[in-house]
Amino acid sequence: MDLPTYEDVAAAARRIEGAAHRTPVLRSSTADALAGAQLYFKCENFQRMGAFKFRGAYNALSKFTPQQKRAGVIAFSSGNHAQAIALAAKLLGIPAVILMPLDAPQAKLDATRGYGAEVITFDRYKVDREALTKEVAAQRGMTLIPPYDHPDVLVGQGTAVKELIDEVGELDFLFTPLGGGGLLSGSALAARALAPNCRIYGVEPEAGNDGQQSFRKGEIVDIPVPKTIADGAQTQHLGQYTFGVIRRDVTDVLTATDAQLVECMRFFAGRMKMIVEPTGCLGLAGALHGGVAIAGKRVGILVSGGNVDLARFAQLAA
Amino acid sequence: MDLPTYEDVAAAARRIEGAAHRTPVLRSSTADALAGAQLYFKCENFQRMGAFKFRGAYNALSKFTPQQKRAGVIAFSSGNHAQAIALAAKLLGIPAVILMPLDAPQAKLDATRGYGAEVITFDRYKVDREALTKEVAAQRGMTLIPPYDHPDVLVGQGTAVKELIDEVGELDFLFTPLGGGGLLSGSALAARALAPNCRIYGVEPEAGNDGQQSFRKGEIVDIPVPKTIADGAQTQHLGQYTFGVIRRDVTDVLTATDAQLVECMRFFAGRMKMIVEPTGCLGLAGALHGGVAIAGKRVGILVSGGNVDLARFAQLAA
Repeated sequence: MDLPTYEDVAAAARRIEGAAHRTPVLRSSTADALAGAQLYFKCENFQRMGAFKFRGAYNALSKFTPQQKRAGVIAFSSGNHAQAIALAAKLLGIPAVILMPLDAPQAKLDATRGYGAEVITFDRYKVDREALTKEVAAQRGMTLIPPYDHPDVLVGQGTAVKELIDEVGELDFLFTPLGGGGLLSGSALAARALAPNCRIYGVEPEAGNDGQQSFRKGEIVDIPVPKTIADGAQTQHLGQYTFGVIRRDVTDVLTATDAQLVECMRFFAGRMKMIVEPTGCLGLAGALHGGVAIAGKRVGILVSGGNVDLARFAQLAA
Repeated sequence: MDLPTYEDVAAAARRIEGAAHRTPVLRSSTADALAGAQLYFKCENFQRMGAFKFRGAYNALSKFTPQQKRAGVIAFSSGNHAQAIALAAKLLGIPAVILMPLDAPQAKLDATRGYGAEVITFDRYKVDREALTKEVAAQRGMTLIPPYDHPDVLVGQGTAVKELIDEVGELDFLFTPLGGGGLLSGSALAARALAPNCRIYGVEPEAGNDGQQSFRKGEIVDIPVPKTIADGAQTQHLGQYTFGVIRRDVTDVLTATDAQLVECMRFFAGRMKMIVEPTGCLGLAGALHGGVAIAGKRVGILVSGGNVDLARFAQLAA
């Protein structure tokens, strides 16, 4: 299996230019004082549809052949990947089918339909999702784009860290959220090339540390669906591509507790005036509590998304 | 009375460079669709201490003579100006005294003290604030910096619009919040010079339309303290300097209702993932509901600040 390279990240950056937002890098002197370091926050909560996922989706769909474009794209997701594929497909004029569980939050069903995708719901207690996806894909000749384990997806996600380092210069440390590994592996490709001395950490929920186990064991470890407020990181295992890059290029995998994520959500809201979903807080939580000696250093923090229901946000952070 | 000029704004921009954040300009395709126009949001809620006020305070204090710096600065405010003066003074090594009402929110008293200022509280039902300020200023030889009616303050505020137009190019329209007029008059100086065809609107709370009355009557109109959730725009009258610029350079003054401000707070939170205080929503509310024909045009929206108590934010926006 050939792993993608930094050149693929650079090509993705050209492909998504003008379609994806070039998100801002924010600073906070209060955060710097807390961490005893210089923190650079790459704010993908301000990305289109509210999360970095748009980058990978748009990059993958941009590479479709004319025939693939006509036949359309299919994806399964109850989260940000669904909206990312739906929006990217709409912008590129590609038909999209998203499979979502019957009991997905109405807001997410509506948002995905709002971007023009056809949503097919299924009973997740009775139906095998992967079999159903393959069946629909085959019937309609559609191309399946998985949420993270795809070279075009992961290199698209890496464009955020490329932008970050292009803007602020070399970093000593980088902390990014870790779920299925699309963001972390893409980020690692970018950081390795652009800041060769940068130490790269993935941060996942303590309750779902399959990434940490896999990294340390040297093979992909499967876990049951973890219980955590970080709903974007409730993955059960890394992918073949993402693990391939992570095991080679990442320094270590850390974990954060839900209480630490809530504390970071409050900090982002109260001091930095921004709404970050629990998963998006993993990077900062790892930098502050992960035991890495970052004092006095230049530290990149990937803020991955802001898609949290406002009532839920108020409950957690206010 | 000589009014300040664009050259003063440009000088202020050089003075605050490196001290103030160069805040991001955000876009939202949902907002564009709502407005039927291209909206450019200049996000001063991400400014240091959470509002544009830092710009004017830092510019004014930077111009102090060595003797003024030793003696210190005095200001009265229960809002963002207090924190702006306190932070700017701390950064410049200038002693600061802030007079605040005894019944100011504890969080604001703490925040101002947290920036290192000496806070003197007074009973606002018994004590004449201006007389007390003058007394303390005279006793200690301190320089008073008022919240808006001061040339160095208003030109400092204008640097936000200078940055906006420098970054995105000429605008057809500009909407900014209006309280005492520091932000609007500074913005007008910048926009007149950098985008000569730009139509410039101030937007104030409907319940406190002294600015609109003053603009239309051609003289400063005084009103009782207005009842509105836009606590940063509860001013009773414009200043001599701010009105002088506003009557000359501004296209018109619009108003927005509290309900419209809440709607905009929800939009900013839900779709743009950012926390904006009610006053900071005036610009967007004016653009969406002010009856100005902006269809198809390039529109700057000044988002002035994000300092709203999180519990209050949750109550209003979630």
